[in-house]
Formats: sequence, structure tokens, C-alpha cells
Amino acid sequence: MYDIDINSKTPIYVQLYEQIKKDIQSNLKAGEKLPSIRKMTLEYKISKNTVQSAYNQLYAEGYIQSIPQSGYFVSKDLYETIQNNQNQEIINQKEENSIKYDFYPACLSNDLFPKKIWLRLYNKVLKSDLNMGVYHDIQGDILLREKIAKYLIQSRRVNCSANNIVITSGFSDSLHLITQLLKNFITKVAFETPSYKVAKKVFLQHDFKLEEIKVNKDGIDIKALNNSSSNLLYITPSHQYYFGVTTPIAKRVEIINWAKTNNCYIIEDDYDSELSYNNRPVPAMQSINNNQQVIYTGTFSKSFSPSIRVAYLVLPKEILKLYKKEFDYFYSSVPIDTQKTLALFIKEGYWDRHLRKVRTINKRKHDIMKDFFYSKMIDEIDILRQGSGLNFLIKPKIDIDLNQLVKKASKKNIKLYLRSLDENTDVLSMGFGGFEEEDLKEALNSFYTLWKKQER
Amino acid sequence: MYDIDINSKTPIYVQLYEQIKKDIQSNLKAGEKLPSIRKMTLEYKISKNTVQSAYNQLYAEGYIQSIPQSGYFVSKDLYETIQNNQNQEIINQKEENSIKYDFYPACLSNDLFPKKIWLRLYNKVLKSDLNMGVYHDIQGDILLREKIAKYLIQSRRVNCSANNIVITSGFSDSLHLITQLLKNFITKVAFETPSYKVAKKVFLQHDFKLEEIKVNKDGIDIKALNNSSSNLLYITPSHQYYFGVTTPIAKRVEIINWAKTNNCYIIEDDYDSELSYNNRPVPAMQSINNNQQVIYTGTFSKSFSPSIRVAYLVLPKEILKLYKKEFDYFYSSVPIDTQKTLALFIKEGYWDRHLRKVRTINKRKHDIMKDFFYSKMIDEIDILRQGSGLNFLIKPKIDIDLNQLVKKASKKNIKLYLRSLDENTDVLSMGFGGFEEEDLKEALNSFYTLWKKQER
Repeated sequence: MYDIDINSKTPIYVQLYEQIKKDIQSNLKAGEKLPSIRKMTLEYKISKNTVQSAYNQLYAEGYIQSIPQSGYFVSKDLYETIQNNQNQEIINQKEENSIKYDFYPACLSNDLFPKKIWLRLYNKVLKSDLNMGVYHDIQGDILLREKIAKYLIQSRRVNCSANNIVITSGFSDSLHLITQLLKNFITKVAFETPSYKVAKKVFLQHDFKLEEIKVNKDGIDIKALNNSSSNLLYITPSHQYYFGVTTPIAKRVEIINWAKTNNCYIIEDDYDSELSYNNRPVPAMQSINNNQQVIYTGTFSKSFSPSIRVAYLVLPKEILKLYKKEFDYFYSSVPIDTQKTLALFIKEGYWDRHLRKVRTINKRKHDIMKDFFYSKMIDEIDILRQGSGLNFLIKPKIDIDLNQLVKKASKKNIKLYLRSLDENTDVLSMGFGGFEEEDLKEALNSFYTLWKKQER
Repeated sequence: MYDIDINSKTPIYVQLYEQIKKDIQSNLKAGEKLPSIRKMTLEYKISKNTVQSAYNQLYAEGYIQSIPQSGYFVSKDLYETIQNNQNQEIINQKEENSIKYDFYPACLSNDLFPKKIWLRLYNKVLKSDLNMGVYHDIQGDILLREKIAKYLIQSRRVNCSANNIVITSGFSDSLHLITQLLKNFITKVAFETPSYKVAKKVFLQHDFKLEEIKVNKDGIDIKALNNSSSNLLYITPSHQYYFGVTTPIAKRVEIINWAKTNNCYIIEDDYDSELSYNNRPVPAMQSINNNQQVIYTGTFSKSFSPSIRVAYLVLPKEILKLYKKEFDYFYSSVPIDTQKTLALFIKEGYWDRHLRKVRTINKRKHDIMKDFFYSKMIDEIDILRQGSGLNFLIKPKIDIDLNQLVKKASKKNIKLYLRSLDENTDVLSMGFGGFEEEDLKEALNSFYTLWKKQER
């Protein structure tokens, strides 16, 4: 009845199991008795263990029942409709990479990532006695946290130590963790407007009410903040997310005082503070007056690599306590090999060197953009952001349909990115980070040709 | 007045900036005029650009204001209390690693991770044209998703393709994503009891109501489920989280029908299905009848490495749609180099080989535990879980204070893990995965010595 091939690569018990299962699915009835192990042994000249293994598997999957002193029976309550596993065709959705020029506002050129050094350090890490069989520290690797603390103290004046740093896998991961903690006692967040739409979405996903607060030339509107009923402020003081404005020190102190007076928290998103082209970076707001109001977030995405998914939080004492309680099970989402390699990268001095390089190269590209806009387009656009980060923000002064422009550019394999200033006003976020220097001018010329055609 | 050292490594403009800043903080008054750039140039014999740079930096940080045609002034609304950045001492909290035997229920021995092969593939990946300067696919690397799909179809009979897989950084990451999506239309979850406390906590963190449903000898109590008012079920059908029970096929079909009839979703947590020692793994529940009810979650933590932080979700159509809408900004939290290396690892056949090894080695350790418990302790304990995964669950039949046992073991550098069966009953979860084979017997003997001492 069953077809056993002793020369097959498939173990005999599996052959038997597969065939009996098929039999159950198509022929046998519920309650029907299966041949005894002894009978099977004799009939197919196979060992008792082999039959037992096949029956065990069928039993484990619930196809058969075992009744002591009686034998094995097809499960009584087995449904007729058993799995009909039509494997869906695997559709390969690989995006065709035909884009010629991509003005994405937040990427870095491929040549900036120090592959050789990284590889050397990675090899060193993996060849060490690093145990890959266990869960590591829930806050992140202690060595990496120490190195980040040292960097933040020196370069951003942040009040921190390895103890109040949490390693995360990107800004949105950081914000999810924080909103998860804060939502238990805070319901409303004051939000710079316009600002980072991802942050906005995460707050809304955690059911926060959003109080939009206007951004002036020198950052957030302090009067509006003082009149607000929120207990939390999300802010990008180093370079305001849209306009790149640096919040002046006086205003920073006022914001800190607002938080102290009203017992509020501030989320300081310091996403690209390393990339200041006209000035040295301004110290973090978190550093002012040893305050315990600021939850500081930083990332390696803008100045190192968005692909390695590493960011960090610096938590005030009370929030750290909450974190340890709420996320006692949540092992740092960054692989330990990545964490250890990055720690070594900073420890051995490569991080400082890399930062200088990333600043120099991106300043050059920034200046190419700036020269282009000022020499060719300054009568047609207002430049809303420049001088920092990886993008310009430009707003047409002329009558032009930006949506049409984006579409037509797309047909020419040029990717442009629209942002909303408010409900009625669209602007273009023009990233330069992803370009190799030599391509940038050509890309800008191509863009400008399309722009000219689109003018009304 | 200012002390400029042209031989210093610190750029002159920084020297000037630092000193003026100090001056503002300690001497100058709000509104006081700064020397003109021309005057500074003459006085210190430095270039106009150098002075301008220093002033720009002070301006950017808000210390000074610029009034056109008048010059630079100390900011009017500057507070007296400026940052007092006392760098906290970095306290090195490295845990002393003095543990001799660790019975942690969910780790693997260090020697199981294929470091050499992994390194070789990692080097290959990084030396390719992989772009580390960009954000990659939000669902995860397409090649890795294809490889996981192929594996899941072949070994777990899961209905999937690369398109409905999402790569995450661990089970709790997976569950956070899912609860975030489901909480918009589901408020109550039926939860196997006892089961995985981390899952329970994540549901509670997302404000789900929990309906606890008893686990019988053959898995969840179907009657209780049919009477439940939940629209979601969290279940571990391959090996029930506490008892290792495999839900029989008949019951699986009943559960699927419950979900279909009541328009509910099921989260199938298939955390250690690869590790079955007495039978071949049972196909996933998700595979039954092409259903669209099951959200399937798997992980590389139990059979490959908890340190690399890789897990995955297989989403039904409707949930996938929601995911793409809600998490359009959330780039896969796993580093692209890790994803690409893992994809290559599976593609080149190492994954299948690794699984055989991990099963064989852990079965041997499982059998050592089993032999020990049956030969020495079977009159003193009930074995509640065996035959799969990385741990046994044992419940004393004798009068013994488990809390005391855990404490005393800890003093001897032996780590034991208590779990609650219910409010009144504690049990021991005895992991074997982390041991090298040759240490396990000795560890068990040490444990038993303490156990004997603790008997009342």
C-alpha cells in the first residue's frame, strides 16, 4: 500500500509519514484504525523505530490519536478541509534602479562610508570572544554607550554618562520608545510647525494630541509656547527641521524655564547637528543649566550611515527609571556586532576623522548648490533653508506647478521631493548629500532645465 | 584684551569665539556693543574673515545680535544662568561576569554561531557595491525576504512570498508593530495562560484588554475560546510557550474556523518551531486552508543567534495594507549589512546545514537533561515541558522553597529561573541551550546538590 524507497535521500520514516498523511487527508475516515506498529514492521521490512517515528510525527501534528492497549486511530474530530498549501508565486518586486539624479533630502553619498576601516574593525570584533548566543544589554553595549557619552560631552556639551544612554535603531525607534513611556502621564505635545512629519505621525500613533506652535525666524514662538497647555515639547533647536534655524541661547533658556516652571518635558531632536557649514555646532539645549527636563535624541543616520540603523537617547533620571521598568524585556534592537564595531570605530579615533570628512565634503556640495541657486535662480526662488544638514529648502517666487514639475522630473528619472509649508504652500526639499560632487552641477542643470519648461 | 595664539592648534576664530563668549557670560551686559570687525582686525592683526567667523558663531548660538548699519551687540534677553556643564562622571557599570552555570531558558552556546562563514559572507557583502549612504526598503531587504519566504514555505508550509514579509529586530519589535496596527480596531486579546510574559506586557502597553484562556494538555481550551469576546488570539501552537504542547491539527482547524466565523485575527508565535527533538516540526497554523486570519511571527533568536536581532512577520493582505500605510516612514530596523549577510547565508545553503547542527547538538543536551531528571529526580518533580526548544519546565512534587533555592544558587554563581504557573505555583525553567555539552552534567549535579540541601 505504501511505497517505501530505501535508496531515497528522504528518511524512510518521513516517506511513511508523508504517505499516511496523504492517505488520511484523502481516504481514511475519522476513527479508522491504523495498522499496528508490529504489522507495519513485518509488511514493509522496516524497523519498529522507523514506524514509531512516523506515527509520532502524525501524532504530534494531530492527525492520529493513540488509545492505550488499542493502537493508533485517525483523529476523530479531524476536519475534511485540510491545508491546501498553494504556494504563492514569489513575485520579485525589485525596484528597477533607473533613477539618474535623486535629490533625496537625507542620504549620504556611497563613497563616504569608510568600508575598509569598518571591515577591519568588524573582523576584529567577530574574531574576539564575543558571545553571539546570548541576549545582550537592554540599553545597548556598555562600551558603545561610553564612547557616545564621551563624544556628546565633548562635542555637544550634553550632560550624560553611559548610564543614561539607550541605543536604538533609528530616530523613529527612539521616538516610539519615548512616546510609549510618556503616554502614561502626558497626553498633549507642543509641536514646532512646520516640522518633521515622521515625529508628528509617531505622536499621533500613540494617541497624543498635537498642539501646533509656529516657528519664527529665530525658532519656536515663545509666547505661544508659554500659553500652551501641553506638557511636552518636540523641538529641533540646533537646526530647525524645515528652516535650519538655530534657536538662540536666550530663547533656549526661556524654553528650559518653561519646562521647569510647568513641570514639562522636552524632546530635543538633534538629528544633524554635526553638519553646520557656517558655524561650529551650537551646544545642545540639554546642556543648559543641568536640567532634567530634556530627553535628547541623536542619530548616526545623517552623518555616518542611515543603513546601519543606529541612534541613541539620553534620558533624564526619572525617564530612565521608567525605561528600565517598562522595557525590562526589550533587548537593544541593534545587533551586538554592529554595536561593538561602532564602539571600536569611535574608540580608535576614526569617528572624529570621519566627521571632519563628512563636514568638508558636504560643505563643498552645499556651496555648489548655494552658488547655483544664487547665481541662476535667486529671482525665482526664496531659499528657506541653507547652511546646514543635507538639503536646501526652496520656495518659488514665480508661478510654477510644483506637482507637475515633480511628475515631469520623474519621467526624466530625476527624483524631487515636495514638502508642505502649510496647507496651501508647497516647497521643494533639495538634498545634496547623496550626490558625488562631480555629478551635482549636472543634476542641478537638468533640474533647472525642467524648471524653466514648467514656468507659466 | 583677548589672548590670541597664532601657533595654537585651535583655529584663531575659535579662540576668539571662546573668549568673547566667556566675556559675555561673566562681564558684558545685555545690549553692550561689541568692537566692530574692522577694529578687531586692526587690534589683533587677524583677517576680517576670522573675526566674522567668530561673530557668526556667537550669532548662531544667540549670544550676540546684529543690528544693520550699527554692528553687533550682546543679546538683550540673555539670561545670567548659562550652562554649567559639569560632566557627570562616567560610571562603568560593567556587570562582573562571575556566573559559573547559567540555566537561562533562551540562549545558545557560543560555539554554535558560525563565525567563520558569517565573516566570509559579511566581507563579501561589504566589498560589493552595497550603498551604505541610503535608507533601504521599509519591509526589509528583498533578497532576505525571498530567502525567508522560501524557507518558510518549504519547512513550515507557510503561505507567503517576499511581498508579505516584514523584517524586524526581534519578537518584541514584531509584536510592537502588530499591536500598533491592530489597536485601531481591536481592543481585546485572548491570551493563552500561562504563556509568554513579554507578549502579555506588550499587549498591556498598547492598552489591550487581556482575556486569559486556559491551556489544556492539547493546547488552548477551545470552549473558552468559542465563548470569548476577543477579536484577537495570541497563541504558540507549535510548542506552547510553557508546556511545549503541539496543538493537534483538528484543534488548529477549529481555531482557524473560530477566527473566520468571528472575523478575528490570530497571532501565531512560532518562536522555536525548528527545535523539535522527537518529531519533525509540525507545519504552521498559518498554512491551514489558505486562511487570511493568521499573522505569523518567527525569529532567528532561538535557532541562530539572539545577538543579531533579526525576526520576521508574515502579514495577511489586509494587515499588510495597513502596515504600508502606517509605517511608510519606518525603515526596517535591521542594518542592511546584517540583512544582506543573512540572505547570503541562507542562499548558499548554510542555513539548512546550521539548522541540522543546532538541532543535533541541542537534542543531545536535551537528552542529557532528560536522562538526568528521569534517573535522579523523577520522584521529586513533574516535568511540564520537554522534547523541544531550549528548556525544560519542572515543578517540584516535594516541599521545597524555590525562591530560597534560586537565592542560594545565585550565591554559588548558578543562575536559575523561576516562572509562575499561576498565582500560587512557581516552577523552574531549566535552559540547556547556553551550555557546552561537556559542562551540562556537572551543572546539573551542582544544581541537584543545592536542591537536596533545600528540601524540607
